[in-house]
Amino acid sequence: MISTDFERRRLPIDGAFTIARGSKTESKTVVVRIENGARTGTGAAAPDSRYGETIGTVTAVLPDLLAAVESVDDPLSLDRIDRRLRGVVHGNPAARAAVSIACHDLAARRLGVPLCRQLGLAPADAPPTSYTVPIDDPEMVRERAAAAIDDGYPILKVKLGTDRDRELVEAVRAVAPETTIRVDANEAWTPHEAVEMSAWLADHGVEFVEQPVPADDPEGLRYVHEHGALPVAADESCRVLADVPEVADRADIVNLKLMKCGGIREAIRMVHAARAHGLEVMIGCMVESTASIAASIHLAPLADYADLDGSLLLAENAYDGPTYEGGRVTMPDRPGTGVRPTE
Amino acid sequence: MISTDFERRRLPIDGAFTIARGSKTESKTVVVRIENGARTGTGAAAPDSRYGETIGTVTAVLPDLLAAVESVDDPLSLDRIDRRLRGVVHGNPAARAAVSIACHDLAARRLGVPLCRQLGLAPADAPPTSYTVPIDDPEMVRERAAAAIDDGYPILKVKLGTDRDRELVEAVRAVAPETTIRVDANEAWTPHEAVEMSAWLADHGVEFVEQPVPADDPEGLRYVHEHGALPVAADESCRVLADVPEVADRADIVNLKLMKCGGIREAIRMVHAARAHGLEVMIGCMVESTASIAASIHLAPLADYADLDGSLLLAENAYDGPTYEGGRVTMPDRPGTGVRPTE
Repeated sequence: MISTDFERRRLPIDGAFTIARGSKTESKTVVVRIENGARTGTGAAAPDSRYGETIGTVTAVLPDLLAAVESVDDPLSLDRIDRRLRGVVHGNPAARAAVSIACHDLAARRLGVPLCRQLGLAPADAPPTSYTVPIDDPEMVRERAAAAIDDGYPILKVKLGTDRDRELVEAVRAVAPETTIRVDANEAWTPHEAVEMSAWLADHGVEFVEQPVPADDPEGLRYVHEHGALPVAADESCRVLADVPEVADRADIVNLKLMKCGGIREAIRMVHAARAHGLEVMIGCMVESTASIAASIHLAPLADYADLDGSLLLAENAYDGPTYEGGRVTMPDRPGTGVRPTE
Repeated sequence: MISTDFERRRLPIDGAFTIARGSKTESKTVVVRIENGARTGTGAAAPDSRYGETIGTVTAVLPDLLAAVESVDDPLSLDRIDRRLRGVVHGNPAARAAVSIACHDLAARRLGVPLCRQLGLAPADAPPTSYTVPIDDPEMVRERAAAAIDDGYPILKVKLGTDRDRELVEAVRAVAPETTIRVDANEAWTPHEAVEMSAWLADHGVEFVEQPVPADDPEGLRYVHEHGALPVAADESCRVLADVPEVADRADIVNLKLMKCGGIREAIRMVHAARAHGLEVMIGCMVESTASIAASIHLAPLADYADLDGSLLLAENAYDGPTYEGGRVTMPDRPGTGVRPTE
């Protein structure tokens, strides 16, 4: 017998989080709980209006999604649950991801092992996470980068897509001469700007460029991939499984996020499809609660690059679990995702 | 502490098994055992010279493969083991599959659940298996088909690639007017023959055609896919993950086999890559021992079509486990793959 519930939470961000698309000061989330006997699986949604979701749409579809889980009534039939969820509603990936995470948490708790272990993965195989430097004044960007270096982060991901992009990169390089830097334009550049920036960024030792152009310009992405000096990672351009073959000759790396693709099983499918095309894989996140990011941490051993600092940006977190040390993200050795409500 | 061993076995076939490529009267196998504490995982290799393997090559590479498993020394780190195995040697898929199966059996035994349950799959979601009718005289083919119908098999897979193909199909249709029939030419036709046969087979209510042309003629496969009347399944043309995108516009279905692809994780990767391309998935097998086919039975819920009767053709089997009832293949509800040495 499976029972379910969910609740909205507002998690304030420490300061503001600004990218090319806009700025926010809190992360609105919906926490999902799925109970079976003495065990509870927990997940959470971090809806993003970029992908058509709000707290309202998540809470609107969750009752039907959770009814589908209850109808399967078997916490270990994760693939069947996944198919039922996809049958309930198209799109709505964050809502489905919340349910998927809670189900996988519950299943691994039932097996008595951390989720990564059920999946056959070894935590030590995960790549270190980058630390995200959001858009701000060059002075603030420099401070933020310097603080991250002091905290031992070996990789910085610098958000670009402003009219001062070069200043921002120079500000970071000034305090981080040897650090690996990745940049993310969040669709802000034109293809020509992107190729020009790519050459300049290559001269400044940047590792790769994420989502240089809008997702609705696939030929623009191809142009940047063909003419740019740096490898290209597709984020907004690669949401779900069917997108992987589409971007295979337009990018070098795909950035997978549970909140874009709709759940753990779809993310794993995407990893494997990416490998079939010789693409590298990044596992990323939104600004989101530990209750959801924990699942991505368990998947990180499948990836070449990790960008899993989304919960560090929160001033409050409803759940705890991960520890961050010099870019290494570790979950406690507890069954399931290992998250617990914050005391 | 992990310890390993392996032994050769010869399993006589009940009669002979003939396909377009040739005939055989026994299945040579190597059984692999991996022990960790009180638990033992079992797998087996069914090497096929079509894919460059013999009993000799399997036993030649197994010591290094098993040393890699011992070096990981953690039965749940299946992905790391998989990477190490691929690092030891390219090709040699049956040898690697035997080790992969034994490792997955051991891991699921340690978790205390059937392998399909560790993988999140529900046995009831598996498609029914076809029953294979090998090449023979039309009279023998008719008898074999009639016996399979009497046994309740709902789907027959008829091996073709002779100069009497139409007679063989007519012989089966005579005793199985309503039964689903699939045909498998095992690379025997030219593209033009295949297109002609496809039209004739469509008139005889055949569901699809497997591997009509040689794997080394990819443009021929494309020609059959474009001009033939029936869907096309790629078997010899689709061995490993990287082949999936290659056949995506040349076939409708991919037939995955552990003995071709090298193990459980590669097979799962291929399923997901196939889905990314909108391909349907068949899970197939060689003439092989229960000790290996059991793993494919656990994967069957991921597939649209199953062809898992390869151990039924054996007169003796070193391991037991699966039961076949009217096309439904069921493993006992025991941890791991559920196989046990035959008493």
